[in-house]
This record gives sequence, structure tokens and C-alpha cells, in this order.
Amino acid sequence: MTPPTSGQTADNNDHLVQSENPDHPANLIPSLCAKFWTLGWVTGTGGGASIREDDLVYIAPSGVQKELMKPADIYVLSLAAQAQSLDRRNRVYLRSPPNYKPSQCTPLFLAAFTKRHAGCCIHTHSHWAVLVTLILETQGPGRDREFRINNIEQIKGFGRGFMKNGNLGYHDTLVIPVIENTAHEEDLTEFLEEAMDKYPDTYAVLVRRHGVYVWGDNVHKAKTQCESLDYLFQLAVEMKQLNLPWITDIEPVTPRRL
Amino acid sequence: MTPPTSGQTADNNDHLVQSENPDHPANLIPSLCAKFWTLGWVTGTGGGASIREDDLVYIAPSGVQKELMKPADIYVLSLAAQAQSLDRRNRVYLRSPPNYKPSQCTPLFLAAFTKRHAGCCIHTHSHWAVLVTLILETQGPGRDREFRINNIEQIKGFGRGFMKNGNLGYHDTLVIPVIENTAHEEDLTEFLEEAMDKYPDTYAVLVRRHGVYVWGDNVHKAKTQCESLDYLFQLAVEMKQLNLPWITDIEPVTPRRL
Amino acid sequence: MTPPTSGQTADNNDHLVQSENPDHPANLIPSLCAKFWTLGWVTGTGGGASIREDDLVYIAPSGVQKELMKPADIYVLSLAAQAQSLDRRNRVYLRSPPNYKPSQCTPLFLAAFTKRHAGCCIHTHSHWAVLVTLILETQGPGRDREFRINNIEQIKGFGRGFMKNGNLGYHDTLVIPVIENTAHEEDLTEFLEEAMDKYPDTYAVLVRRHGVYVWGDNVHKAKTQCESLDYLFQLAVEMKQLNLPWITDIEPVTPRRL
Amino acid sequence: MTPPTSGQTADNNDHLVQSENPDHPANLIPSLCAKFWTLGWVTGTGGGASIREDDLVYIAPSGVQKELMKPADIYVLSLAAQAQSLDRRNRVYLRSPPNYKPSQCTPLFLAAFTKRHAGCCIHTHSHWAVLVTLILETQGPGRDREFRINNIEQIKGFGRGFMKNGNLGYHDTLVIPVIENTAHEEDLTEFLEEAMDKYPDTYAVLVRRHGVYVWGDNVHKAKTQCESLDYLFQLAVEMKQLNLPWITDIEPVTPRRL
Repeated sequence: MTPPTSGQTADNNDHLVQSENPDHPANLIPSLCAKFWTLGWVTGTGGGASIREDDLVYIAPSGVQKELMKPADIYVLSLAAQAQSLDRRNRVYLRSPPNYKPSQCTPLFLAAFTKRHAGCCIHTHSHWAVLVTLILETQGPGRDREFRINNIEQIKGFGRGFMKNGNLGYHDTLVIPVIENTAHEEDLTEFLEEAMDKYPDTYAVLVRRHGVYVWGDNVHKAKTQCESLDYLFQLAVEMKQLNLPWITDIEPVTPRRL
Repeated sequence: MTPPTSGQTADNNDHLVQSENPDHPANLIPSLCAKFWTLGWVTGTGGGASIREDDLVYIAPSGVQKELMKPADIYVLSLAAQAQSLDRRNRVYLRSPPNYKPSQCTPLFLAAFTKRHAGCCIHTHSHWAVLVTLILETQGPGRDREFRINNIEQIKGFGRGFMKNGNLGYHDTLVIPVIENTAHEEDLTEFLEEAMDKYPDTYAVLVRRHGVYVWGDNVHKAKTQCESLDYLFQLAVEMKQLNLPWITDIEPVTPRRL
Repeated sequence: MTPPTSGQTADNNDHLVQSENPDHPANLIPSLCAKFWTLGWVTGTGGGASIREDDLVYIAPSGVQKELMKPADIYVLSLAAQAQSLDRRNRVYLRSPPNYKPSQCTPLFLAAFTKRHAGCCIHTHSHWAVLVTLILETQGPGRDREFRINNIEQIKGFGRGFMKNGNLGYHDTLVIPVIENTAHEEDLTEFLEEAMDKYPDTYAVLVRRHGVYVWGDNVHKAKTQCESLDYLFQLAVEMKQLNLPWITDIEPVTPRRL
Repeated sequence: MTPPTSGQTADNNDHLVQSENPDHPANLIPSLCAKFWTLGWVTGTGGGASIREDDLVYIAPSGVQKELMKPADIYVLSLAAQAQSLDRRNRVYLRSPPNYKPSQCTPLFLAAFTKRHAGCCIHTHSHWAVLVTLILETQGPGRDREFRINNIEQIKGFGRGFMKNGNLGYHDTLVIPVIENTAHEEDLTEFLEEAMDKYPDTYAVLVRRHGVYVWGDNVHKAKTQCESLDYLFQLAVEMKQLNLPWITDIEPVTPRRL
């Protein structure tokens, strides 16, 4: 067991991950990740999920089999304490599991929590996401940095943007920025934050040849937006195989009775 | 909790969704939707299902994760009371769940119940359904408004039509009308009803770039017709990828012993 | 409840389908069919399975949702009694479920039991099977009546043939005959029997645009041969999409240490 | 029941496969194989898995339905006793299940345990693996004996090699050797060992038109490497269908803040 560091108590704050409530983050992260494993999103220990409740952030550890994760495997850190740290890369955990290392995704999850006040962030290696970034790569420089699709009903599954009310409409174009992958996952953080700055309303960022980060105001929104996005990525790959364009110009249908 | 409106009692008629019987509509809708979620039909809160028993209609709420739905989440309304309403868009619920909004699919489900006396209606966002409508789009105006397939055994899974006995035969052509999607799901209602009028024997209507509505005299028929249709949509997409035609001219085989 | 007919007792012989043993045919057929449903083999009430134990044949009814089937839904008939019947189409059931009709697959299952002494026969509507028959159709008359594949390890999953010991080898060519579909499933019987006569060693017959019948000496063999075949059908479709031939000429590798 | 042979006690050492611990190899092999069955890796009794704990090797039997396997079905042998055997093909089991034959994969699993000191070895018939070997076949002699892919995040799921610390990096090229299939699975052993000698750092060997062998220092590593590899095989097949190359030349992204 790792020795307690500042912020940790001698008993490792195990109470932070102990609850009978299935919706407690320490229970919810394992059950969500097990579900994601069956979807092929987090195979081979790739991908993960993190939940924020007020100041506390719950994170799955590095290298764990996602369908076998247990509440006792979860890290907990304090956003406020983290904000006071001079070195962004030096993270102080309120609670650490005995036999794991922190996830390299941690600073990327934190970006969603601090810059967007998200309540949950999901990272998948879905091969639909990867294929979309590979297909974009073939479209040449300048056109490979955004996934764009419109006129598909499932687009309505996304919020209109940070601090905005309501969802996208059927005719709106969903735009997901794509950032290049880096050798070390933590190094993605600055590019993810850049993309968040440039696309203030996006709830997701694709990482080339790697996967996608999706967040939401709460677990419900992060999870359903992640599902909707994976649905659209799969559809987009199948459309490409059938030579169908992702963007079309469709005249809105006018209901006669209005 | 919303205050009781006309038709609602002070106790919100919660008894309407409380039953030990797994086949009670309030139990069946959640178990069906959980199954549909694993099939990819209702991901990201899209899609849904509704059951009618005599005068009572049970409907899943808007925006719920379909694999997590509970009986307490179900709306109940009376067809007779609804028919007396002057404003079709003003629906009076006998029972409303506390924290949800009614589904935008409601008037479309009601169309199946009132115009076809259906006992169950299912709405999926199956990407096979969406891909079929996209493939049809490429076939030019006039040819994009019907999905047609023949000479596939699974076609026998469909009834011959409203008030008709028996099922389609192997050599019959299954025809499913396609309507254009509208910006607001409720606005689909008039077009769905138009398609029902024009195709009096159909048990399903495809919605372009959106999904499909399928109904049946009872839950069994709606569900198995929906499965058969999804099977055929998947087959049709795979046939397209292999350059095989959906419609063929096949001479019936004559059994020699007859 | 249907009145008892000859061979049936007043109590409908319900004991024939009541057992605590999970391997009893009346329990095994429902559990197998539930598994097959998740594989997409028996959706929309299509397909089915039958088990023979000595003289008794257990059969799923027509039109039942395969993942919901119960032991009480199972028909039982006697092979010996059936053999004495003058009219092949008049089947006498020892036990009939109250609310169902017999499966149209019945005479096809019986063919496997009587002509091959099979212990189990499975019928799937797997779309891989259907696609294989559709691909063959494009290869012109004379070449469309056999599915042939060789040099794939999974071919070893098949027995060498009726009354023969051992299994096919890696370099052997698996040959599955294809018969044309008929308007009525029972009419397939004579063609299935013809194919059995012409291909005495086959354990399966494909039905064009319909699916496949697979049998085996017992449940284990029928089920694993059905799985292996579906694996090969899927592989064959994917090979076709990648323009790879099903039949190749490969020189056997000689182990040096022999 | 087979009579006890040297090394076996009269009671067949059944205690070796009896444990309440779900992580005991005799419990873990069945639960892993059931999971692999749902992934399509071990259908039709193909494929399998073996675990080594110190000197003891636990192996699934031949011809068993992998999702139905029980602890009592497991063979156990001693590596040390096996090493003293003069005839490699004459294996002495400490414990044999009553009604099975030993798996033909046994010497291949042993190769991973003795030559690489692996703790677990998995053999799948995944059709993604088979398709990759078929696609390679079309690239002509000399280019068909290695699967190579780079610049995909999931490559990080593999260790750098035998006795080496750390994992492969994003820009590293993962190389998996391909050996030709033999008529008898045991005859693959010498070629598998040759490939291990030629590729000392690989954790997997593809077998043409057959599947893949994957191992790891322990169950966790073998299983997650097998998942990562299957993910990459699937991606590679989909890339081929979309005409995207497996090997690319990508300039590493430099994090600005370093």
C-alpha cells in the first residue's frame, strides 16, 4: 500500500468509495465501464470514465480490465486542492487504491471538469471513432480536423453547447473537432484544451487514431451523448462504405397543419 | 411532483403502473426497451415503445435511458378521453411520472392505436433502417419513397394487412413506405397518418434519416414484426454492399408430390 | 385446449415436458433457442430446433418468440407412430401445447431423424447463410447449388459423414448443398430429402433466400456444427467483400520432425 | 473413467480443480472461455485457453463447448514432469477429466510456458485474425509472413517484449509473425517455436487460415493483449475495406509545454 501523502488520511479515505447506493460514483464507474466493455469501447484496458460530484473527482485506475473493475479500485481527488497545486502534473489524491497507478487520462478528464464544469467524462477507443479519424485523414490537410454530419435524427441527442439551453436540431450540423494523437496520453491535454477553446459548444473531441473524449453536465448526459456519438460514427463509416455523403443539403419539410 | 390535472387523481394513479405481472404493460415496456437497447435500436435515449390495453395507453417518457427505465417512469393516458379533446396536441394523462416530460413520439403511437387499432407500437433508430432510407435517397425522386424487397423467407413474418387474415408469402413483395423527417418529431404525425391511408396494409413506416415505426395487433406481433423488419433492413444493406438487387423475378418451385 | 387425439392421453402427457434436468429436451430446446436468438439466428419467430431421444421427438411450436419459449410450449411425437401413419402430413402428437400450432419445420426435422438417425436438428435464418445463397446465385446456373470452401481450420468442426468416424481435415473441401426455397416450408421436405440422398455425408442443407438446416448425432454435435457453419458463412461473406476466393489450392505443410 | 497413469493418484487428483476461489485456474478457464464464446473467438469448440501456476498447467479439454465448460473438465499437468519426458508427444497428466480427450493445442500452450515463461496462453479462431492472414496472402510471397501496423493507440496495449520492461509506444510498429497452418494442430508446434525464436519479443503468433495464439506473463496480460490484438485485427480488416493503409509515416506531435 502506498504511504499516505498530503490530503490522505492514514486510513486512505476508503469511505469515499464505499456506498450501498448503486448511483454512487464509486459504484457507477465500474457498472458503466462493464457496459462499455460489452460495446467494445474499452477493451484491452483502453479507455475509461470519470465522474465529478461537487469538488470530488472519481477516476478509474490505469491498466485495469474495465469489465472487472471494483469500487475499491477507484481514485478520488479534490478539484480545489488540485487547482492550488503549482505543478499541474503533480496530482494529490484523497484516496488511492493500493495496487494501481493513476490513469494517464486524468488531466484530460480534469479539463472537462474545470473548463466545462462537466459532471462526467467518458473516453472510448471505439473503432468507429478511430475509423472516422482515419477516413478524415484521406480528405487532405485542412479538411481532416473536423467531423461534420447533418440531417440525421440522432444529432438531436446533443446539447446545443456549454451554458446553452436545449439540444441541436435535426437540420443542424454536428461538428466534432479532431486533435492529433501524442506519444504520451497526458500530452494530449493542451491540445484538448485548445480544441475546447476553439469549439466552445462541443461536448466531445476526437483523437486521431486513438478514440474520443465525451463529456456532459452529468452522468446521464455524458453517457447518452457518448452513445449518440458512437451511433453517428458507426453510421458515418457505413455511409462511407456505401459512398453516401455525411453532409447534405435538405430542404426542411413544412408541416401543413401549422 | 407535477400537480394533478383533469383526469388525474391526487395520488397520480400510481396503481396503474404497479403490478407483479411481468406482462403488465408498465413492466413489459421497460423489459422490452432494455432488450431493444442491446440490439442498438434505442441508444442515446432515441426510440421507444408504447402498449395499448383496451382504452389505456402506456408510454415511455422522453429522454430516458431505455435500458434503465422503470415501471414508475411510465405515462398512462385514456384513448377515449384523448379523442374528446378538442386540441390534439393537448394530451391529458391519467398518470404522469414525477420527473419526466412526455415523449414526442406520443401522437405517432396514438396514430397506430386509433387508425389501426394496434396493441403495441415500437419506434427504433436502428441504423439499418436509417441506412436503407439513405440508400433509397440515391435512387432518385419517385423511387425513394418505398422500400421494396421480395423472395426472402423472413417476409413471411408480416401480416397481410389490417383486418386481413394470414401472413405475406415468400414470393410477395414487402412494401414499406418512407416519409421525410421533420424538424420536430410531433410534426411527423400527419405524414405518418397519410402513409397509413395510402398504404392501408402496412405495419410499418420508415422515417428518412431517422428510423422506423412498427406496430402490431399486440405486443407479440409488433415485436416480432419489428425484428423481422430489422433483419430485412440489415440484409438489404449487406445486399447493397455486395451489389445484389432487393427485387428479383423468381419462378416458384412446384413441389412434385402435390 | 385441444381435445386429445389418438396417442394423446386426457392429461395431454404433460409429464413428457416436465423435468428438473436442464439437459432434458423440453428444457434444452428453450435454452438453446434463447442462445440462438442472441446470435440473430431465430429472430422474428423464424427458425427453430428439435431434439430426438430414442423414439421421442421434441419440437418447438410455430410462431413463438424463440428467446421466451418455455418447456410447456413443446410438442412431442413418436417416430414409430409417425412411421405407421399413411399420410405423412397427418402427424400425431403425444403431447401438444394448448395454444400453439405445430411448426412447419416438423417434416424437415423428421427427415434428419429418420434418414440420418440424427439426435438434434437446428434451423436458422442466419443472414450469413442467406447471403451465401444470394452470392452463389450470381455465379450462374450449375454453380449455384453448392457452397464450397476449403483450407480453413474451422472446417475440422464437421464430421466426415453419416456412419463415418472422424472429422473433416483442414485441406478437405466442405460442401453444403443448396436447395431452392418453396412457398410453403413443408414443401421443402422432398427437396431436403433429395439433397440428403445426393450428398450422403452432409450434415447441413442450405435453403436459398431462407436459411440453413443443420443436424448431428446429438445436441452437442448439431449445435457445434451449426456454430462452425455459421462461422464459415460469415467468413465467406467477408471474404467476398474483400474479393478473396472460397476455394484455394494450398500445398500441405510438412512437419520436419516427423 | 481412464485408469490412473504415472503421476496420477487413484482419486485422479480432483482436488487440483476444486476451489471456491473464482481466480483459481480451474474456475478461471471456464469463465474466460464463456466470455470468449460471446466474442466469437471459440465457437464450435474451436480455440481455448490454458493457465500456468508455478509448475502446474491447467488446460481445457478437446471438443468441449467453450461456454459450457466446468472446472471438472480441466486437465492438469506438471511442467517439470513433462520436461523429463523423452517423448514430447507423450504427456503425463496429474489430473484428467473422465470423458474427454486432451486438447491438440496442448504442445502449443506448453511452448509459451516453457520458452517464454508465460502464465497464460489463449488461442482464438477469431475471424478477424483469419481475415488478416487471408488479406496478407494476397500481398505476395515474402510480404505475407508478418502482420504490421503502426500509429494506432491500442498498440500501447502490448509489452515491449520478453524480459523487457514497459509497453510499445504509439509510434512503434507492432509486428505479429504468421505461420502456415498444418493438417494436424500439434504439428504447428515446431513452427510456433521457430517464430518465437525469430521474433523474441512477440506475444502472439498468427496461424494462417486458422487463428492466433496470444500469451502473457499472467492471465491479465494474456487476456488484455488478446483483446487489444483482436481490436487491431478488426480495425485492420475495416481499414482494408476502406482502402486505408496499415502502415503510415506520421511525424510525432511535440507538446509545446515541455
